[in-house]
Amino acid sequence: MRTPICVRLGIEYPIFAFSHCRDVVAAVSRAGGFGVLGVSRHSPEELAVDLEWIAEQSGGRPFGVDLIFPTTFAGNDLDALGASVPDEHRAFVRGLMERFDVPAPADQDSARLYSAHKLTPDNARALAEVALDADIAMLVSALGLPPEDLADRARARGIVLGALVGTPRQAQRQLDGGMDVLIAQGNEAGGHVGDISTMVLVPQVVDLAGDRPVLAAGGIADGRQVAAALALGAQGAWLGSAWLTTQESDLQPGLVARLLDASSSDTVVSKSYSGKPVRLLRTPWVKAWEEDGAPRPLPAPQQGLLVRDAMTSAVEHGIPEVLGTPLGQVVGQLRRQETCAMVVGRLVEEFIASAGSVSELLDADDN
Amino acid sequence: MRTPICVRLGIEYPIFAFSHCRDVVAAVSRAGGFGVLGVSRHSPEELAVDLEWIAEQSGGRPFGVDLIFPTTFAGNDLDALGASVPDEHRAFVRGLMERFDVPAPADQDSARLYSAHKLTPDNARALAEVALDADIAMLVSALGLPPEDLADRARARGIVLGALVGTPRQAQRQLDGGMDVLIAQGNEAGGHVGDISTMVLVPQVVDLAGDRPVLAAGGIADGRQVAAALALGAQGAWLGSAWLTTQESDLQPGLVARLLDASSSDTVVSKSYSGKPVRLLRTPWVKAWEEDGAPRPLPAPQQGLLVRDAMTSAVEHGIPEVLGTPLGQVVGQLRRQETCAMVVGRLVEEFIASAGSVSELLDADDN
Repeated sequence: MRTPICVRLGIEYPIFAFSHCRDVVAAVSRAGGFGVLGVSRHSPEELAVDLEWIAEQSGGRPFGVDLIFPTTFAGNDLDALGASVPDEHRAFVRGLMERFDVPAPADQDSARLYSAHKLTPDNARALAEVALDADIAMLVSALGLPPEDLADRARARGIVLGALVGTPRQAQRQLDGGMDVLIAQGNEAGGHVGDISTMVLVPQVVDLAGDRPVLAAGGIADGRQVAAALALGAQGAWLGSAWLTTQESDLQPGLVARLLDASSSDTVVSKSYSGKPVRLLRTPWVKAWEEDGAPRPLPAPQQGLLVRDAMTSAVEHGIPEVLGTPLGQVVGQLRRQETCAMVVGRLVEEFIASAGSVSELLDADDN
Repeated sequence: MRTPICVRLGIEYPIFAFSHCRDVVAAVSRAGGFGVLGVSRHSPEELAVDLEWIAEQSGGRPFGVDLIFPTTFAGNDLDALGASVPDEHRAFVRGLMERFDVPAPADQDSARLYSAHKLTPDNARALAEVALDADIAMLVSALGLPPEDLADRARARGIVLGALVGTPRQAQRQLDGGMDVLIAQGNEAGGHVGDISTMVLVPQVVDLAGDRPVLAAGGIADGRQVAAALALGAQGAWLGSAWLTTQESDLQPGLVARLLDASSSDTVVSKSYSGKPVRLLRTPWVKAWEEDGAPRPLPAPQQGLLVRDAMTSAVEHGIPEVLGTPLGQVVGQLRRQETCAMVVGRLVEEFIASAGSVSELLDADDN
């Protein structure tokens, strides 16, 4: 199953692991896939430490970094943005914190696990600069185009540039901006999503991309789905949620248990998390934003600032009604804890079985 | 590409065409696929005529019927249900009809093209009885379980029983009810849909169904998507929107032109059409139901009764702001008018190319 992107990146399998957890990134790269660290939760100092750790732990195998370039956001002054939050919204969130028994957070460090309030252009640039000095093989933009000077520095170092896209229009913009690889992410994915499903989006992006490789993201957690992604024309599969329940994952154990028990109907796309549409676990907290009388979520990053204390405290105290995570619909397929290497091995085996069945149908046609 | 369901139904390709248009049904069956007539828009008398016509035109090739069993609905007395519509809703619809210059419909016959108000148990039974007397190979429930006596009559005649499902739970209910074939329909499909995408839904339904065949529906309009459906474990692909723009389609020409120009972002799931979530073309009429101040759509079939006159008049007068259709996200892939036979031929060719590429990756693994 070695596609051209495998050759270019020097990996064995076209299986990409997006994770905020450095242990997952290193484990997947060690297993022959390609780990990509989502770094929006990092400070630049933490990022430098983590990238060095991954380089050591991945045994020389390549890995990447994924970050957000929020070029369209209001500005860099988070205090000023916080002050612009309307009283109605503050009152609503205070009411929810009372309703769900959420105390004020004591430990500001646990804010690290909730990052949707940090989306400023300056923060993105600082993180990108650390990443470009490290030994990474791919730099992926999860949102927005990287500034031209940073893209040039990446190219000068031979770093492959990638971008997540949710519509054919976004794909065209990223192609025009010179991206090497597109990750076509369907609506069923966890995190920031558009409206179009993986099945519908991937072939359209493949047709636009011409010779440039496309990875499929959203709705992939078993090898049949990897085979489907490649049948759609993708050169690889980009998985996120599938790693949340692995043994290497740093997700809170209570949350892991809930994911292993959840169905594909237990996620929802909500703007309550960051101000942008994010697919996440449908907690009572998230549902409360859909109720009659709830205010419309603010734009990013104000919404993230508004809910930061509640999210931080939910992590700190493990409050099940509030503690959530970005999460794709494949959660309904996650039923047991495996190591990352087991997941990679299973995906490869299942891919071979699925591709074998399709291949037999082809042979029957030839007769 | 002959899967077991092809052998069972006696067809060449596992390509299923759902259409309200008898010409499409006959043309696809003639081309080696399997046409399925959606009959919710028919009177029993019309249905008998159309099924005889298809039997003549399809040259002895098998075909099927798809209908709705609205067992949970309020009752059979449409006049009484119509009278229960709140004044607020009537006033809102009157306002919309003024805003979009929609006259009262003159010709009640054009109501045939809008059927969402006819969903009563009695209507469904009358249609099913006509279908069971005709020469059909498959009877599909688009919603609900067929009554046991009708299911028994179908089995006695050797008619394959199928059901559309949108969640693993619905799949289990239909399996428990003795259905022979499940059609797993993703959120990207046109018409009545659930929340889960095709990519995520199909493997879960396949796992539940055991030996019973599953067809994949939603997000399929080219042969790469057919190959993906089979890679996911389905035995066939069920297409709906792909036939709307064919030369045989009876869709209004103005609407066909708009579909050929639309993108995958031009559909939306709305309850404004029937009271149930239906993915359809996002017309100004549909958008108006999402605006601030719009009332929540009524349940089915009241919502259908409420908007019947406007829908009927839109068909009669071709009012572009109002004239819509159930429509899947694949509309963004429909770019030219083809005959149904051309579509079938193209799907087969593209399937062979896609499956061939995946198959080559497999060979590389064996080396």
